[in-house]
Amino acid sequence: MNNDKTINIGLMGLGVVGSGVLRIIHEKARVLALETDRNLRVKKILVREKAKVRDISVDAALLTNDPDEILDDPTISIVIELIGGVEPAYAYAKRAILAGKHLVTGNKDVMAVHGPELLRLANEKSVDVYFEASVGGGIPLIGSFRSDLVANEIREIYAIINGTTNYILTRMSREGAALTEVLPDAQRLGFAEADPTKDVEGIDAAYKLAILTSLAFRTEVDPADIPRTGIMQLEPADFRYAQDLGYVIKLLALARQENAAPQQSARYEASVYPALVPQTAPLASVDGVYNAVYVVGDLVGNVMFYGRGAGSEPTASAIVADVIDVAHNIISQVTNRIPYTIDSAKTMKPMDEVETRFYFRLWVADRPGVLAKIASICGTHRISIASVIQKEADPEEQTAEIVITTHDAYERAMQAALQDIAALDVVARVAGFLRIVDLGEPVRV
Amino acid sequence: MNNDKTINIGLMGLGVVGSGVLRIIHEKARVLALETDRNLRVKKILVREKAKVRDISVDAALLTNDPDEILDDPTISIVIELIGGVEPAYAYAKRAILAGKHLVTGNKDVMAVHGPELLRLANEKSVDVYFEASVGGGIPLIGSFRSDLVANEIREIYAIINGTTNYILTRMSREGAALTEVLPDAQRLGFAEADPTKDVEGIDAAYKLAILTSLAFRTEVDPADIPRTGIMQLEPADFRYAQDLGYVIKLLALARQENAAPQQSARYEASVYPALVPQTAPLASVDGVYNAVYVVGDLVGNVMFYGRGAGSEPTASAIVADVIDVAHNIISQVTNRIPYTIDSAKTMKPMDEVETRFYFRLWVADRPGVLAKIASICGTHRISIASVIQKEADPEEQTAEIVITTHDAYERAMQAALQDIAALDVVARVAGFLRIVDLGEPVRV
Repeated sequence: MNNDKTINIGLMGLGVVGSGVLRIIHEKARVLALETDRNLRVKKILVREKAKVRDISVDAALLTNDPDEILDDPTISIVIELIGGVEPAYAYAKRAILAGKHLVTGNKDVMAVHGPELLRLANEKSVDVYFEASVGGGIPLIGSFRSDLVANEIREIYAIINGTTNYILTRMSREGAALTEVLPDAQRLGFAEADPTKDVEGIDAAYKLAILTSLAFRTEVDPADIPRTGIMQLEPADFRYAQDLGYVIKLLALARQENAAPQQSARYEASVYPALVPQTAPLASVDGVYNAVYVVGDLVGNVMFYGRGAGSEPTASAIVADVIDVAHNIISQVTNRIPYTIDSAKTMKPMDEVETRFYFRLWVADRPGVLAKIASICGTHRISIASVIQKEADPEEQTAEIVITTHDAYERAMQAALQDIAALDVVARVAGFLRIVDLGEPVRV
Repeated sequence: MNNDKTINIGLMGLGVVGSGVLRIIHEKARVLALETDRNLRVKKILVREKAKVRDISVDAALLTNDPDEILDDPTISIVIELIGGVEPAYAYAKRAILAGKHLVTGNKDVMAVHGPELLRLANEKSVDVYFEASVGGGIPLIGSFRSDLVANEIREIYAIINGTTNYILTRMSREGAALTEVLPDAQRLGFAEADPTKDVEGIDAAYKLAILTSLAFRTEVDPADIPRTGIMQLEPADFRYAQDLGYVIKLLALARQENAAPQQSARYEASVYPALVPQTAPLASVDGVYNAVYVVGDLVGNVMFYGRGAGSEPTASAIVADVIDVAHNIISQVTNRIPYTIDSAKTMKPMDEVETRFYFRLWVADRPGVLAKIASICGTHRISIASVIQKEADPEEQTAEIVITTHDAYERAMQAALQDIAALDVVARVAGFLRIVDLGEPVRV
């Protein structure tokens, strides 16, 4: 093939995903050429250590540890950024765009924090930024929100977008195990990192939710503004009670938009927390390292996207698809074909004002009148109780376990009530606290 | 807005979906203008009867029953075809393309039978053909296959893509009802047509499968070549046995591609039949009028797309998204950005050569030695039995019911064995015959 038919790519990062991308671009050269009528050529690869032993065989001449060899090379038209983390990835991404290069990234941190800025910059510099791989591995989410669902007012998003926590919760649910028993397995199997904070505290999910919500609601969501609760406080008892009540526990990243009156700015909520989800909901059966995003649009109704949310090949599937799309744009001499649009200012609703159902589990003194006191506090805070389970008692300690679920109540009211309940002398411990997300039964039969 | 900012649309068909499209284009003018920076204007609407009373209020001056008023109007740049059926829709679609108009269609018949021809013609005439709405309503499928999954070798597709039959099967499964009891309800509720042949015989599903398989396997699939079995022969007993065996019954449209050796042409199977699907498979919980497409790609692994596969608003969601995409192309002055590619010749595998597991239900004489005779026939045809249930006997008739499942066997062998079994004098009736599709458990926990 002559040079006109070659598109030069600079690959930044040769870790799990980067290696997968490199391998696919080589192994699938025939199909990629069939799709694009071009030779996609990885010209340079930025690595930290050139001498490192790798799983993939790669021409040593391609490797560099100088980012300038990619960013200052005028023959490179596409930069694939797979470094991860905000810095130096963000700096490189910005320089690539300023240098007139198209950017394909799988970096959720950069896109969650700097996505809107990079997309605007790309528009100014007439280059494209693609980021399908930043959320949900190879599951088509970014493209779906930007194109396929674009006629919809997206009302609700419920996402299981962190495979690590979903693996842990699935095993806790099936085995009645404690988190401390399951986490080491997840680490050993490569499903959790040595420091699992970003996953188990919901930080990773919040970043991905910020990206999805920004697109779906046409607004800029700062991931730091998304209230988060992690999974560390979950105990086996919560899984047992959840099952008795007809629910499973899932770490949900969710966003909901209010119906705004005309001329008024709409408010939305976005948060990440472990929630009780009905066993009959499609999301309830999303187990293990699988991800799923359940979306409610005003036209399309309920749609769900399901698949592997991480891993070398699923993520590389999205990266290479984005590269092919950029190649189509290069051939057609078009950029920013789908404009990045922001609707009138929308504001995030403070968590305090969010209404939802609650589940809480208490260890109380095993004597008469306790439930009356708790119920009275709930009443004072205008919280209506939906169900009560009092099941286990510890005769030696003279304590009993009570589980209460509520009807819809304001977060502020629930938190205040919980504080009052915890202060009761008959309450030994608030052992569990979860929100209930009654995803509508989708089946009209 | 001045005329440069207006994109004129000709709408052909003002039925359920057409009315929805018209309403959305009017009601969502603000958002559509935000996305496209253009005024999308429906200039003419082709209807059969201009005087008909409609649910939607529409300017009578827009209505016409002369297709030329759309096809010969040089100011109309997008034709939305929602007439349905092959003729005259195909003739109009072709004329629109030849006249240099972009085509957005929800017509599965036209796209299944003439899609490849229209896509090639569109390429020659430098216009675009979009058809997301032709399969699965608003679920993003066409776009996903054409873009997001394009780096994958698609290995398997398992689709529930006919809402009518899925509604009927869901109710039969839940209520133990006969098809003849459920069908009238489906018709009354608008989920089935007065003549339900196309749905219950799997014709509709075969057309949609032809569209998906053509894209996924980069080949041309003639829907007439797809072997079909409908749902008419299913009896309540089959649902009971399926449940006992850990399965549900779903009308599957499925396609699988063989791993071809290099330089060899790959063979694929494509067929539509009611199948036993494991209760634990994600597809098993797709109930009622919902659709889902479960795809296995070499990179992405298992992905599933789920949602409402029909109805005015879900389908209009896809149509309007396609119109917006065409508008982006018009603005960027690009057409056929994603080329329509056909890979080297692939051939459909004759059904006879397909290997799968089978389920069959027999009414036999209730006397010793019957099972031995049946097992012997299976052995002769090299069919290995996986399980046998003999549950019910009719003392008066002196007959018993036997259900047998097999391990993987060739269709040809199974059909021959079944013929031999039916010919046994101890066999009163082959009452049920189904294939078993053991969709892999997707969860690695």
